[in-house]
Amino acid sequence: MNRIAKFAVPIGAAVLALPSLAQFAKPDDAVKYRQSAMFLQSQHFGRIGAMASGRAPFDAAAATANAQVVAELVRLPWAAFGAGTEGGKAKAEVWKEQVRFKELGDQLIADADKLVASAQSNNLDTLKAQFNATAQTCKSCHDNFRSR
Amino acid sequence: MNRIAKFAVPIGAAVLALPSLAQFAKPDDAVKYRQSAMFLQSQHFGRIGAMASGRAPFDAAAATANAQVVAELVRLPWAAFGAGTEGGKAKAEVWKEQVRFKELGDQLIADADKLVASAQSNNLDTLKAQFNATAQTCKSCHDNFRSR
Repeated sequence: MNRIAKFAVPIGAAVLALPSLAQFAKPDDAVKYRQSAMFLQSQHFGRIGAMASGRAPFDAAAATANAQVVAELVRLPWAAFGAGTEGGKAKAEVWKEQVRFKELGDQLIADADKLVASAQSNNLDTLKAQFNATAQTCKSCHDNFRSR
Repeated sequence: MNRIAKFAVPIGAAVLALPSLAQFAKPDDAVKYRQSAMFLQSQHFGRIGAMASGRAPFDAAAATANAQVVAELVRLPWAAFGAGTEGGKAKAEVWKEQVRFKELGDQLIADADKLVASAQSNNLDTLKAQFNATAQTCKSCHDNFRSR
């Protein structure tokens, strides 16, 4: 198919346009959905982290491919935190402090887009800096909204 | 960021270029990874199915958004079926009949790309036809390679 046509509407914008309510047959599906998305994110983000920390050789093409997957995945979990889907490791604060939670989700999406650009720069220091900034956004949200 | 630049390399091609070996810290991570990807696929594919079957009103924009997510997700699981990652519901045939397994995975990727186009057509019959074709590809693979 024509990939230009495919991406004529930015995927992230399309996903964010999805209604967030009533998408899951049962609350457990929402919990499993967001956990699945977060796990996939962590795997691809971790592969970039291995390069950033020197545990794996820097490969700009692989870093870019992983960052592109991260940038798609980080758009998914938020619709799965709807009313009545409490559970998993999500703290009650997710539903009590929705504005702050959404701010951090939006920050992660912005960070992931920058992560793609930093990987494409083919400069390891640039990638490291944006990896660290993105990891800090993950941590800020987990510290406030995820149980240990 | 510049989405044209972001998508200059088709994401699927980039993902397929990732080395499939040694990406997971332990075999269980590979099992969890492919199960997570398959679960996310099923959720988004199911939302299109609800429209195709008349259980939900046809909304071409929502169908397109879901199909685009499916088209990204269907590219992910295959790298998580590497040597030594037997487990979950995967039958031994995955590793014994790798050519056939890959053919069906490639077929699913092709079907998912067509699913995006069919959703963009804004014609429910076109969407139904491609939904059914894609579901048949899922079934063919599950019948042969997934335990019940």
